[in-house]
Amino acid sequence: MKFTIDRKYFYNQLSIVSRAISSFSPLPALSGICINVQDDHIVLTGSDSNISIRSHIYKGEENQLQIASTGSIVLESRYLLEIIHKIESTIVELEVMDFELVRITSTNGKFNLNGMEASQYPNIDFDQPSNMIELSKYTLSQIVSQTAFACSENDQRPVLSGVNFAAKDGYLYCSGTDSYRLARKTITLNENANFNITIPSKSLQEVVRSLSEDIDKVQLYIDSKKAQFVFGKTIFQTRLLDGTFPSVEKIIPTSSVASMVVDAHELASVIDRTNFIRNDKVHLVKLECSPEIVRIKTNSTEIGSSDEVLTDCMYKGDNLTLTCNGSYILDAIRALSGSKVDLEFSGDMRPIRILNPEDDSIVIVVVPVRSYD
Amino acid sequence: MKFTIDRKYFYNQLSIVSRAISSFSPLPALSGICINVQDDHIVLTGSDSNISIRSHIYKGEENQLQIASTGSIVLESRYLLEIIHKIESTIVELEVMDFELVRITSTNGKFNLNGMEASQYPNIDFDQPSNMIELSKYTLSQIVSQTAFACSENDQRPVLSGVNFAAKDGYLYCSGTDSYRLARKTITLNENANFNITIPSKSLQEVVRSLSEDIDKVQLYIDSKKAQFVFGKTIFQTRLLDGTFPSVEKIIPTSSVASMVVDAHELASVIDRTNFIRNDKVHLVKLECSPEIVRIKTNSTEIGSSDEVLTDCMYKGDNLTLTCNGSYILDAIRALSGSKVDLEFSGDMRPIRILNPEDDSIVIVVVPVRSYD
Repeated sequence: MKFTIDRKYFYNQLSIVSRAISSFSPLPALSGICINVQDDHIVLTGSDSNISIRSHIYKGEENQLQIASTGSIVLESRYLLEIIHKIESTIVELEVMDFELVRITSTNGKFNLNGMEASQYPNIDFDQPSNMIELSKYTLSQIVSQTAFACSENDQRPVLSGVNFAAKDGYLYCSGTDSYRLARKTITLNENANFNITIPSKSLQEVVRSLSEDIDKVQLYIDSKKAQFVFGKTIFQTRLLDGTFPSVEKIIPTSSVASMVVDAHELASVIDRTNFIRNDKVHLVKLECSPEIVRIKTNSTEIGSSDEVLTDCMYKGDNLTLTCNGSYILDAIRALSGSKVDLEFSGDMRPIRILNPEDDSIVIVVVPVRSYD
Repeated sequence: MKFTIDRKYFYNQLSIVSRAISSFSPLPALSGICINVQDDHIVLTGSDSNISIRSHIYKGEENQLQIASTGSIVLESRYLLEIIHKIESTIVELEVMDFELVRITSTNGKFNLNGMEASQYPNIDFDQPSNMIELSKYTLSQIVSQTAFACSENDQRPVLSGVNFAAKDGYLYCSGTDSYRLARKTITLNENANFNITIPSKSLQEVVRSLSEDIDKVQLYIDSKKAQFVFGKTIFQTRLLDGTFPSVEKIIPTSSVASMVVDAHELASVIDRTNFIRNDKVHLVKLECSPEIVRIKTNSTEIGSSDEVLTDCMYKGDNLTLTCNGSYILDAIRALSGSKVDLEFSGDMRPIRILNPEDDSIVIVVVPVRSYD
């Protein structure tokens, strides 16, 4: 195995596949990047066995790839990235010397890195499922930023640690919930797809981080075992979560008894500045709403209390007092990313729908908590 | 106790004194800021019992201070800072309500914070020692950035975790050493001072971070127990380290058998990019020097090896091969902050002097290590 390549291009591709590599890899070989050099292209693979990323580098002007001999090797990801990042050279040469030693040559110096035989790298199935939908980079990023935050962070019900993608009747419904709150994004599909899968939220966040500026569209291939995101020359695949995702339609209230439209920045600021007034580490805020005045209060015997009035706020309905987790409201405001937020109340202790008045593709539901003060 | 004050000004002063407060405070009261309101000014105090910071706020145009009643209270530092930072108001009001409850009032809201009686706050002696020298902010910052890095990070010999300040014959000698390396900065004094004290390096780093832009000069008051840095309306005092500081003059070689002047950026880059090639976590670099060529090599059985040639380098003397801790050389180059570095070798396994050819006020000494390859 011997080739030369543009250093920066190579570094970028290594960075992409290294995203899949965990510092606690289940198998020694998985802490490395598998480099497979074929006649006219190189295949780079990184994996933590849940997420696997493969990148293909075909000879081209932008990468200056020259292949002298084929072969394959596994190199420790963090060492390889550090060398390729730090050496001062436009073109870099990699060559397998005797056994598993790889020589990396730059203008003024050479590095020998101990590698591992490619035969020790697990065989990862990158076969392409037949079910496919296409999403723009913007849409995929939005789905992730507007739903993944609501997923569960503990492993009690594994299926809740992912975002459910349900395609039917020309729509894609993406839902995340930790059973105390829910975020649902609805996308119109061009394809007539029909599936129901749950993708780990961590995988989704990694996909979005891997999308470079020049990417415009992402193809999503799906079967019952895995989801494969294909963009540029990169395949990003992740295992799916087992288990039945709860039917979220039932949770979203269909009517409301009162509503409040409020300046998003003001509501976020008022809640955020009482963030330290917590009860058992939970940031509870009490909303005291009436058509005349809306107050936001917090109270902790240990720390203190607060009482603020919302200035840019329009409340319609009967007087209502509700207590919620302040962090959930803050997350909702951030995800909706509008200048106003619309809170639709369905009654005492009943779920609140939180909406962006200018974007009906996204709905967030937060369940109030009982307050004993 | 009741007063109003410009919020931003108050926040800045609170931030300064809060630097002394540790999240692991030895006494509950020390996790708070002590606010003492007198007839015409406020005194803020923060302390972790090693470092204590006191700031005086006198009525003035820039702070809009209005005092309605005197008194004192201790408020949890992180809560107070968070409120004062986040509320949206030009002027803020603080008032002690019944017992230890403090009401903080802004334009749209009020906060009640549980405080602690000021009688529970330890009595900290801020008396001013009589020995004084004056340093410019620039000089003090340079002393710290050029010597503190060389101090010991473990507690085996506590005195080595500080920078020794020795004043005699019109000079101030500032030295830091962990016994494997040494950094010494020499300053010409205007005062005829005579003292020998060792200040904890952490205290020095905090002093420098506390110096705001408008500060120009710092007065340093010293006795055998403490050092007091006075700037603006702030007193920053720290306990000293007990023990006799080693006489560093004996460690600094007075002659050399060979010397190397090298581009600082190049030497740093070559060493930095082999940072991961370590033996038992230590980054050893071997310098193979001859008038014709200087090579920098690393070797680790586990990870790999490297071999680079310095291009912008002038070596004079007999051939010499030496192994040092690469991190020590990098620290030295950073502290000297010149475009060139001058390495003066005093023989095989003998200390290396590292100098900036354009600044003779600072000398760094690094002891080579034995290499067995």
